[in-house]
Amino acid sequence: MSLRQSEASGLHHAFYPESIAVIGASANEEAERSEGWLGRLRQFGYQGRLYPINPRASQIMGMKAYASVTDVAEDVDYAIITVPASLVPRVLGECVAKGVKFVHIHTGGFADALNEEGSKLNDALAEVIKGSNTRVIGPNCLGVYCPSGGLTFITLFPRVAGPVAILAQTASALIGLIPIADARGIHFSKVVSYGNALDLDSPDFLEYLADDPDTRYVMAYIEGVKDGQRFLKSVARCNSRKPVIILKAGVTQGGARAVTSHTASLVGAEHVWEAFFKQTHAIAVESFDEALNQLVAFHYLKPPAGRRVGIVGLGGGWSVVTTDICEREGLLVPALSDESTRNLEKMKGLEVGRGIRNPVEVGLGKFGLSKEFVDALKITAADSQIDFLLIQLYPGGYVQQWAGGNQMDKAMDTLIDTVKGLPKPVVMVIGLGYDPHSMTISVNAHKRCYEAGLPVFYAPDTAARAVSKLIGYYENRTS
Amino acid sequence: MSLRQSEASGLHHAFYPESIAVIGASANEEAERSEGWLGRLRQFGYQGRLYPINPRASQIMGMKAYASVTDVAEDVDYAIITVPASLVPRVLGECVAKGVKFVHIHTGGFADALNEEGSKLNDALAEVIKGSNTRVIGPNCLGVYCPSGGLTFITLFPRVAGPVAILAQTASALIGLIPIADARGIHFSKVVSYGNALDLDSPDFLEYLADDPDTRYVMAYIEGVKDGQRFLKSVARCNSRKPVIILKAGVTQGGARAVTSHTASLVGAEHVWEAFFKQTHAIAVESFDEALNQLVAFHYLKPPAGRRVGIVGLGGGWSVVTTDICEREGLLVPALSDESTRNLEKMKGLEVGRGIRNPVEVGLGKFGLSKEFVDALKITAADSQIDFLLIQLYPGGYVQQWAGGNQMDKAMDTLIDTVKGLPKPVVMVIGLGYDPHSMTISVNAHKRCYEAGLPVFYAPDTAARAVSKLIGYYENRTS
Repeated sequence: MSLRQSEASGLHHAFYPESIAVIGASANEEAERSEGWLGRLRQFGYQGRLYPINPRASQIMGMKAYASVTDVAEDVDYAIITVPASLVPRVLGECVAKGVKFVHIHTGGFADALNEEGSKLNDALAEVIKGSNTRVIGPNCLGVYCPSGGLTFITLFPRVAGPVAILAQTASALIGLIPIADARGIHFSKVVSYGNALDLDSPDFLEYLADDPDTRYVMAYIEGVKDGQRFLKSVARCNSRKPVIILKAGVTQGGARAVTSHTASLVGAEHVWEAFFKQTHAIAVESFDEALNQLVAFHYLKPPAGRRVGIVGLGGGWSVVTTDICEREGLLVPALSDESTRNLEKMKGLEVGRGIRNPVEVGLGKFGLSKEFVDALKITAADSQIDFLLIQLYPGGYVQQWAGGNQMDKAMDTLIDTVKGLPKPVVMVIGLGYDPHSMTISVNAHKRCYEAGLPVFYAPDTAARAVSKLIGYYENRTS
Repeated sequence: MSLRQSEASGLHHAFYPESIAVIGASANEEAERSEGWLGRLRQFGYQGRLYPINPRASQIMGMKAYASVTDVAEDVDYAIITVPASLVPRVLGECVAKGVKFVHIHTGGFADALNEEGSKLNDALAEVIKGSNTRVIGPNCLGVYCPSGGLTFITLFPRVAGPVAILAQTASALIGLIPIADARGIHFSKVVSYGNALDLDSPDFLEYLADDPDTRYVMAYIEGVKDGQRFLKSVARCNSRKPVIILKAGVTQGGARAVTSHTASLVGAEHVWEAFFKQTHAIAVESFDEALNQLVAFHYLKPPAGRRVGIVGLGGGWSVVTTDICEREGLLVPALSDESTRNLEKMKGLEVGRGIRNPVEVGLGKFGLSKEFVDALKITAADSQIDFLLIQLYPGGYVQQWAGGNQMDKAMDTLIDTVKGLPKPVVMVIGLGYDPHSMTISVNAHKRCYEAGLPVFYAPDTAARAVSKLIGYYENRTS
C-alpha cells in the first residue's frame, strides 16, 4: 500500500485530465450524444482531447474512434469504462498497458453484485492494476464532477465552481443534492462518486482535498471504510485544515444491512463511529438536508465569538420555542443588559406583553420593515451579552393579511442594509410558507439573503443545529 | 375552586354563543368594519345577535349601539372586551351584573405587564368575577376560533371545520400555523388563545374537549400552568380518549425567562415535565412544525399494527439514510422475507447493486410511475415482516432531467391508485424541491396525497418521528 499511497497527492489529473478516452462509447451517435459520456462531456464544455473507444466504429460524433485505448497515439490521462462487467478486466488491462493515469469504471456488477461472478470479476480487476501506476475510481459509480476541469456526470449540473468538495460512494443522492445546493448559492470544487472503492478510497481523496486550495469545505457520505486507521488519520488531518462534514450511513442495524447490499462496504459498529467523531472532531450529520444546512452555515456565517445568541423577530409562541430550540442545541440565550432593555422599552410599537429581554419580539411592520425592527436589531447587536443574532421572519403575514410579496421585498431591502452595518454576525430564519405563492415569496427572500452573503434557513431548529456545530468546530480548532 | 370547576363542562356558549357584545367597538365605522371585532365576526359569517357597546355612539355598522352591556335587553352569552386596561375592571363588572356567560378580554397590560399597575388591575379583575357565574377567557389574548360557531380572531381563517382543537396561551403562532394546516387539509373544531389565564385555564378547556364529539385530536401550546395536579389529571383523562399533543415552551433556562415576560406563567423545571409526559402519555413535541406533522400523522394514518416499516423508493444514499433515520426514531427496518426478495429479483428495471431486501430501491421511471415501482409496492406491502410502508419520491428528478411536472401528476395517478389497493398503511415522503417551479410540483403532489387521504411529509426524519410517536400513542393506549 505504501507505494500507491505515496502517489495519492498526485490526483490532479483525476480532476483536470488533458485527455479522456471513453471506452464503450456507443456507435449509435444519437444515443451517445444524448445519453453517453462523450455527449455529456461535450455539452458540459470539457476542453481537452476526447477519444471514443469502440471496435465497431470508425468515427463517433465527428471524432475518430479507436478499437482500443492502446491504439491512441497521444497520452491518455483519464478513461471512462462503460462496457459490460465481463469485459471490464480486459479493457482495464489495456488502460494499464497504455499508461492511463486514472480510470473511472462506471459499470457495476462486481463486489456490489454480492454473488460469485461479481466477486471473481472484482478479483480480476484488482489483479490487473496490481503494481501499475493506473489508479481506479469505482467500479459501480458515476465518477467525477469538477466544473473547473470540465468534468461531470450530469449535464445540467452548474458550470460555476465553488469551495465545496463532496465524497460519496453513491451518486443518486448527489443528483438531488447539487441542484438544491446551487439554489442556495453553494457550488463545488470537486465531487467524487467512487462506488465500491476497489482502489482509490476516501482517504486518498481526503489527503488530496486537504491540500487543495480550491476546496474550503469537505462533505463525505460514507457507507463504509476499508482501512479504519488510515481513514481516521486522513479525516483528522483534513479537518484540522478545513471543516469535514460526514454523513455516516448504515449506523443502525437496518442501515448496516442496507449498506452491505449497496457497495459491499464494511460498516463498523455505532460506538466505533462515536469514538471516531470524538477523536477527529469531524462534524457528524444525519441526513443530506442537514449536510447542506451545515455547508450553508460554513459558507455564509462569519464564526461568532461565542454561543450567546440574540433572537429578534416575531413574537407569540415562535420566539419562545426558538429560544428553547437554541438552548437545546447548545446555544445560549442570555438576558440583554439593562441598558438594552431600557432602550427597547423606549421604543414605540413594542406592545405591552412583548418580550424585550431576549428574545426580542417585534413585528415586521405592515409595509416594508418597521423602524422598530431596525432599532431592535441595532440595540441587540450592540449588547455585550450577545455574540450573534438570529433574526426570524415569516412571510406568511405579509402574504395573508397585508400588502403581499413586494412588501417582503421592501422589508428585505431595509433588512439587508441594516444587517450590513451591524457589528455581529447574523443568522436568518425565513419560514417557507404554505402554498406556491407564499413559498415563492419565501424563496425569493432566501435568494436575497444568499446574494447578500447571509446564511438563511427555513426553520429555527435546522439553523440552531448548524450554527452550534459550526461554533463547536472552531472551538475545537482553537482548544 | 370546586364550584367553578363543576361548571367547566358548560363551555358550550364559549364556542357557540347565540349573542355577542363587543365592548369597545369603535365609533369610527370604517375602522370597526376593517379592523374591529364586529367587522371580523360579520365577515366571517357569525349568525347570532351582535351588540356594539360604546357610550359615544348610537349606531355602529347599522346596529344599535349601547352605552353599557347592562343596557341590552336580551341575554348576552359572550362579550369581547377591547377597551383600555384601566377601564376593563368596570366593564367586566357590568358583564357580571348582566349575567354574561363568557367574557373574552382582548386587552393586555395586566399580569403580563410585569409591573405594579398591571398587578393591581389583575387583582381587580379577579375580585370582580369572584363568586359570579361569568367566566373569563384571557386577558391578553385573541380568544376563540370556532368555525362551526362562527367565531374567529382572523377573518381569513378557513370557514370549514375539522377535528383538531388547539389550546394556546399565545395566538401569534396560530396565525401562522392555521393557514399551513389548512394547506395540509387539517381543519379545526375549537381553537382557544387564552393569554394570562386569569380564570379559564388549560384544564377547563381540556375537560371540555375530552367530551367534545367534534374534537378528535388536541394540540396544546403551554407556557405554564397554575395547578399542576389538575393539569396533569385533565391531560391524562383527555389523552386516554383522544391524542393530546403538547408543545411545552420555556423548558430551557432561556425559554423559561422568555415565557415569564410573555404571560407571567409559572414554568416548572425540565425534569418535572419529563415526569409529566411519562405519566400522562401525552405526546411531546418541540416545535410548531413538529406539532403540525404530528397532527398530519394522526389525521391521515391508519395506525399500523407495529413498528416494522418497508421503505420503497429512490436509491443511492437516500434509502440508506432513511433507514438509519427510521431506526433512530424507534421504527424497525427488517429484511424482507426470502420470497419477497426472490419476487423483487425477478423484476426487470432493478439494476444490480440496488437494495431489494428493504429498503427497496426502485426508480420512479421516466414517464409516470414505472411498473417496477408498482410491483415493488405490492410485494413489499404483502410481506408478513412489514407493518406499513414508507414511500419516498423526489420530484426533482422529473423536473430536472425528464419530462417535467405533468409526469409527476401521472406518477401520482398511478401511485394513489396502487396505494388504495395495498393491505397495509402507507406514509409518503415527497421532497420539496429547490425553486418555485419544483416546489410547486411538490406542493401539488402533496395536495394529491391529502385529497386521497394519505399522510405526506417533506422529509423522512419528520415523517419517521411523527409516525413513531403515533405508534407509541396507540401502544400506550392498549398496554
